[in-house]
Amino acid sequence: MYNLLKGKKGIIFGALDESSIAWKTAERVHEEGGVFVLTNAPASIRLGNITALAEKTNSQVIPADATSVADLENLVEQAMVILGGKIDFVLHSIGMSVNVRKGNHYTNQNYEFTEKGWNVSAVSFHKVMQVLYKKDAMNEWGSIVALSYMAAQRVFPDYNDMADNKAFLESIARSFGYFFGRDKKVRVNTISQSPTETRAGTGVKGFGGFIAFADKMSPLGNATAEDCANYAITLFSDLTKKVTLQNLLHDGGFSNMGVSQEVMEMFE
Amino acid sequence: MYNLLKGKKGIIFGALDESSIAWKTAERVHEEGGVFVLTNAPASIRLGNITALAEKTNSQVIPADATSVADLENLVEQAMVILGGKIDFVLHSIGMSVNVRKGNHYTNQNYEFTEKGWNVSAVSFHKVMQVLYKKDAMNEWGSIVALSYMAAQRVFPDYNDMADNKAFLESIARSFGYFFGRDKKVRVNTISQSPTETRAGTGVKGFGGFIAFADKMSPLGNATAEDCANYAITLFSDLTKKVTLQNLLHDGGFSNMGVSQEVMEMFE
Amino acid sequence: MYNLLKGKKGIIFGALDESSIAWKTAERVHEEGGVFVLTNAPASIRLGNITALAEKTNSQVIPADATSVADLENLVEQAMVILGGKIDFVLHSIGMSVNVRKGNHYTNQNYEFTEKGWNVSAVSFHKVMQVLYKKDAMNEWGSIVALSYMAAQRVFPDYNDMADNKAFLESIARSFGYFFGRDKKVRVNTISQSPTETRAGTGVKGFGGFIAFADKMSPLGNATAEDCANYAITLFSDLTKKVTLQNLLHDGGFSNMGVSQEVMEMFE
Amino acid sequence: MYNLLKGKKGIIFGALDESSIAWKTAERVHEEGGVFVLTNAPASIRLGNITALAEKTNSQVIPADATSVADLENLVEQAMVILGGKIDFVLHSIGMSVNVRKGNHYTNQNYEFTEKGWNVSAVSFHKVMQVLYKKDAMNEWGSIVALSYMAAQRVFPDYNDMADNKAFLESIARSFGYFFGRDKKVRVNTISQSPTETRAGTGVKGFGGFIAFADKMSPLGNATAEDCANYAITLFSDLTKKVTLQNLLHDGGFSNMGVSQEVMEMFE
Repeated sequence: MYNLLKGKKGIIFGALDESSIAWKTAERVHEEGGVFVLTNAPASIRLGNITALAEKTNSQVIPADATSVADLENLVEQAMVILGGKIDFVLHSIGMSVNVRKGNHYTNQNYEFTEKGWNVSAVSFHKVMQVLYKKDAMNEWGSIVALSYMAAQRVFPDYNDMADNKAFLESIARSFGYFFGRDKKVRVNTISQSPTETRAGTGVKGFGGFIAFADKMSPLGNATAEDCANYAITLFSDLTKKVTLQNLLHDGGFSNMGVSQEVMEMFE
Repeated sequence: MYNLLKGKKGIIFGALDESSIAWKTAERVHEEGGVFVLTNAPASIRLGNITALAEKTNSQVIPADATSVADLENLVEQAMVILGGKIDFVLHSIGMSVNVRKGNHYTNQNYEFTEKGWNVSAVSFHKVMQVLYKKDAMNEWGSIVALSYMAAQRVFPDYNDMADNKAFLESIARSFGYFFGRDKKVRVNTISQSPTETRAGTGVKGFGGFIAFADKMSPLGNATAEDCANYAITLFSDLTKKVTLQNLLHDGGFSNMGVSQEVMEMFE
Repeated sequence: MYNLLKGKKGIIFGALDESSIAWKTAERVHEEGGVFVLTNAPASIRLGNITALAEKTNSQVIPADATSVADLENLVEQAMVILGGKIDFVLHSIGMSVNVRKGNHYTNQNYEFTEKGWNVSAVSFHKVMQVLYKKDAMNEWGSIVALSYMAAQRVFPDYNDMADNKAFLESIARSFGYFFGRDKKVRVNTISQSPTETRAGTGVKGFGGFIAFADKMSPLGNATAEDCANYAITLFSDLTKKVTLQNLLHDGGFSNMGVSQEVMEMFE
Repeated sequence: MYNLLKGKKGIIFGALDESSIAWKTAERVHEEGGVFVLTNAPASIRLGNITALAEKTNSQVIPADATSVADLENLVEQAMVILGGKIDFVLHSIGMSVNVRKGNHYTNQNYEFTEKGWNVSAVSFHKVMQVLYKKDAMNEWGSIVALSYMAAQRVFPDYNDMADNKAFLESIARSFGYFFGRDKKVRVNTISQSPTETRAGTGVKGFGGFIAFADKMSPLGNATAEDCANYAITLFSDLTKKVTLQNLLHDGGFSNMGVSQEVMEMFE
């Protein structure tokens, strides 16, 4: 629509199906003139329909397990060959808790599951950046964005160990963002997005009540996946070059609400 | 009970009646061996029953309009005479919004009222500290505490312009706290307290629903005025000498809750 | 360059001269297809050269003292006539401390000066929004932005009472942002910008050392006025519709640095 | 000195030698009338001289690897036998990064080391609480405290992956704190302490420069291990019953400083 990303090359992690934030972002990047490779774990590729997205956006899919450094090295190398140069933008939209899937309460964790979820949801972000950094694969003033959620700062009981993983993820954004900024002029941020009805989101227990609560608390209502895609576009563009190490709340105002009139009236 | 404040001298602003946080704090300071003068605006002294508190705690009352530098100078001078030396602790518990009293909505402020509320609720804290600082009236490792509320960070619709005043107050704590710390070894903090059923609190529209909401969101429930008095004692004691420039959330956990199970279930 | 603001109408406060952030923003808005009226206090209009900017951007200048509700009412009414409809974006870039100008230390304030600076720097933002809100002068999904500085959260000794004013300003953004969002679908945010060599900035004592420190602490260096203009463009665009009540750090990463390698080495 | 902890029973993790914060805290708890068991990993017990502390404070030492749920179960069971009842307070002072020890830069992590450090430094806190929670081993209004560091929020380049571990630790405090508060009336907080010259701290590269920088930035100077012990006492006492889910900055004011006069002058 605006050609905001004309000439920019990227890698997009985590587009599972049409409801995914990564999917919507890929569509919007394509509309804005950016090119990219899509990637996901082999199991997620089988589960979703990423090839439809690839066709729609003239992209290639490179499978990669984001916990495997070897897979990520292959991904980054191939991406540079396919796109014809270094990378300008990266979207990390990966998260999974085995404890949630197995129905383990936060106070009753299986620590092997905890480790697995942490590795997939948080450490993968470090691995992605470490591979990009070591291969010097990012262009100057490139932009790396990971999706997060406000459970990193505040308690949402059913979010379980994903809260702790998101806190770790956001810390990685700051820690690695310092070195990536200083050494390569690359910015690193997280978007802390409203609860969103993606396939991942809807798997969380009590998600319906939770999304309704957030919507009623937020003066502008919850941000949708499409809204998030638009916001990500601005962060990949040349208009936000000095925004870095930030956790950017994208939530219709939820994060700074103590209580809305509408919610409070339920307690009167 | 513990003699935590034995030998310490202070000034306590804002004890209106038995429900006041300042009142409860004065009682607890007295139990812990501290001595102090009580002060309030002449109108508040007439409205409440501070003399009963003075008797109970063997204290004297020195009336002072906290917006008047002259009154504050007189207060500090007299306090040092009465207490026999410099001051170790100060509690600032003062707040009032004319817009709230007059029923003006936040989007329909009378700016003369805004100015008045700001002056009473926020600037008074600067004036108190400027007088203490200029008169070199604080002992080293003294402690100054002002009461605040989380509306300084997040929206509580009916809190009106008091939200902005509390933000200003908390900023004064940091700004003046730097100079008071560096130059006189005095610490300055604010306590951000749960909504509390004081006479001031209950004047706010919708206060009942609001206090119920906060209570249901907080894992330990709302902090009471008595709880707050106990907490203030620790901040006046020698056990917290290196805590400064902080806004200390004292709220049963409310501030770090996204949503509690109990509240969320109302939306399912 | 991208036509990001095509068809959008706005009001820009505070363009004094070519170094002003408001000036740069006006230029960029113009390039992006937005139209606007410029405004400033009569004294600032005489002091700077805003008419040159007006010519360059085909804009009209409407003088207004931002502390005068009558002036603001006139401004908003005239702006709607000139621009042919309701307003889509507003930039508030106004700040002034009489205590700073007169050389009063933070611990030695003249409270009449304090009140004046607060009124100009902070309350003016409320007045602007109250006038826009009452006149129903904003289009749905419009965007209001005020410029702030990180002294609202942390101590910068020479920033003086402007720190407290910025804290008040940011609180207004949240408080009014709630009502403006809920009732009119308008978003309200502040940009917390790196120290910038504008005429206002350079008037602050010790500004040179301060700007050098910030630059050495920030992985991407300080954000310039041009950078800020670009960032403001994204906030006025349709790509950030669900960002509201936020204080957005635009500072090359400064705000999330504890210490940079370069600064730390000076202490080893 | 005050009998603040008379009758209270606890478990203290991580007292290595006289410089340890846990050591100083144990001494102060003893002085305040509390009783406790000491614990540490077998290797740390051999490395330090915890038995001297045990003698001094009439305590027993129960070795436990805090990454082993079985060891923690044994520890909690034995502690209740030795102390004659449920637990009132717990101090978690455990942290270790293999990447730091091996000299791996943050951008060049060995992920097995990352996992090890995360497990020891952060997950151990969850395991401790999960064991206490499942065994219903805490008394009502008990208090659990873990030591953290501000690298969880801001970048300190040499702190390496410990920054991310501390972010995870602080998130655990909130997440588990909610359930522990709601279900057992137990509070959970972290203390974010000034850089401290413990044996663990001094192992970090560039620690000298770093501690000097923090000291010059803080209006009251760095908080020492003794200061921290005093502060921990208040958090274990009955005076802070409604403080929970908080990360409490204990740092002489460092966390809310943008820059001090003294540091800024080095850049002028």
